[in-house]
Amino acid sequence: MLKHVEHIGLAVADLATANALYTKLLGTEPYKMEEVESEGVMTSFFQTGQSKIELLAATTPQSPIAQFIEKRGEGIHHIAFEVADIHVEMERLKAEGFRLLNETPKRGADNKLICFIHPKSAHGVLVELCQSIPDGDDA
Amino acid sequence: MLKHVEHIGLAVADLATANALYTKLLGTEPYKMEEVESEGVMTSFFQTGQSKIELLAATTPQSPIAQFIEKRGEGIHHIAFEVADIHVEMERLKAEGFRLLNETPKRGADNKLICFIHPKSAHGVLVELCQSIPDGDDA
Repeated sequence: MLKHVEHIGLAVADLATANALYTKLLGTEPYKMEEVESEGVMTSFFQTGQSKIELLAATTPQSPIAQFIEKRGEGIHHIAFEVADIHVEMERLKAEGFRLLNETPKRGADNKLICFIHPKSAHGVLVELCQSIPDGDDA
Repeated sequence: MLKHVEHIGLAVADLATANALYTKLLGTEPYKMEEVESEGVMTSFFQTGQSKIELLAATTPQSPIAQFIEKRGEGIHHIAFEVADIHVEMERLKAEGFRLLNETPKRGADNKLICFIHPKSAHGVLVELCQSIPDGDDA
């Protein structure tokens, strides 16, 4: 099962502007910024209770975030749920008929193994599964 | 400040179909369903950690959810944050330049006082503030 909302990803056009606005809105500053080159994004993270708000800005025109914004404008991009064992959950969901966007877990931001579920499998919602990787573990 | 992600609202075309699918996805059943006549929606709620997933289906063609789906298809509709005192947060955010969609708190589903922030004020994200109402309190 999915344990909790690990983060909500928001597609933004300009990270500095959005960081300033979300700092005011949430009443807390981003605790880190991190580039994920493989996805063509620069990210920033805000802690809010058990979950994080992840702002995502494209670093290349081919980035999925650039394409999302071109098509729909800025807005909510995905919901990520923490799982205990991503391999077990991927198998469980495939068996339930969900369509996964990657066959093996990928390395995501914030030291996670991740996998996306196709929005067509989840009523238009891009769902991410993520499993925290213990420090020093390259599993 | 905003305390935590109270829930994430998802716009769905058919509540029974979506309930079945999200029960499989999350690995837990909805703990309640509730109609909010003033908004023209039937809702269902799933608990996942500290936050809830709220499915929203339109009950009238004029419902904001019907309009959302007609324009963008099914998908993530809003993020709601728990606040300690909604009046204090509304004043704080107005002073910070955020545009609120209602001047006074409204009664929402799940025994809450709620207020929406205009998506244009939050990089395309419809943000809801919500404050739990103690049982028997009509404040």
